[in-house]
Amino acid sequence: MNLSDKIRNIPDFPKEGILFKDITPLLRDKEALKEAIEKMADMFRDYDIDYVVGIEARGFLVGTPLAIELNKGFIPIRKPGKLPHDVLKKSYELEYGKNEIEIHKDAVSEGDKILIVDDLLATGGTTLASTEMIEELGGEVVGCAFLLELDALDGREVLKDYEVKSLLIE
Amino acid sequence: MNLSDKIRNIPDFPKEGILFKDITPLLRDKEALKEAIEKMADMFRDYDIDYVVGIEARGFLVGTPLAIELNKGFIPIRKPGKLPHDVLKKSYELEYGKNEIEIHKDAVSEGDKILIVDDLLATGGTTLASTEMIEELGGEVVGCAFLLELDALDGREVLKDYEVKSLLIE
Repeated sequence: MNLSDKIRNIPDFPKEGILFKDITPLLRDKEALKEAIEKMADMFRDYDIDYVVGIEARGFLVGTPLAIELNKGFIPIRKPGKLPHDVLKKSYELEYGKNEIEIHKDAVSEGDKILIVDDLLATGGTTLASTEMIEELGGEVVGCAFLLELDALDGREVLKDYEVKSLLIE
Repeated sequence: MNLSDKIRNIPDFPKEGILFKDITPLLRDKEALKEAIEKMADMFRDYDIDYVVGIEARGFLVGTPLAIELNKGFIPIRKPGKLPHDVLKKSYELEYGKNEIEIHKDAVSEGDKILIVDDLLATGGTTLASTEMIEELGGEVVGCAFLLELDALDGREVLKDYEVKSLLIE
């Protein structure tokens, strides 16, 4: 199956001039969903991984099935105020303004080998902030897996210190 | 495995007097995660289902793996402003204030048989609003699957017109 055909382009969302990549047609197609997760898992099956970390909210959609397919546990990174236990918080700059994400401090232990997963690699800012949090907790980021990479936004360059693999590149 | 042991009680979150049920220890344990999704799927394997609908954000964590385990496609219900195509929006009352959720209008077609999934059944308000949206689009809700049900909050009564099954009840 050509999985790229299941990504829908939505012009001017969330604002004018942005071409939004809508993954909902891929999710809704049972064959495409299954194939996408299996192939994302294939990219990292040979790696030594303890946990899959997924980033709220769309990273959750690919994160838990990928964790199960790789037979690993799943750790969420969330928006502020959502995780109930002691958290490590990270602020990072966006094109306009800044964003914050949190992870449970007890979610990652010294030496844990982590695969970060998200649906989309755009500028790489959220993923880079995630790597910093994981490393601050003593974890090691062994890779970053994406369903779709937007080549023009150079997120791969921002994440150049990490093993970055994307199932689809546009 | 006793999956209930993997749910962590956090007192006074998100506000004083609330005992928050934290599912992150269950997600982090690879055996528990796998077993929970398999057993949630078991609850509805014999049902005629076309799509699994999951509610942002924690419903995404159980929704896509459940869809894959049942060999169905996945449809997200999201917070306002997140879905890029034409949406149906639903407002509903919370204990304090109101909430809004959206679904893509073209996600559900006439006669589609839908399983709604979320991590937690509390008051049932979000799930009920979800059933209304799905039915407005012509879909049929064949069941509602939860990882954990808080028995004292009577969500099951709110959803009494539907087949409600929860893996864990506390």
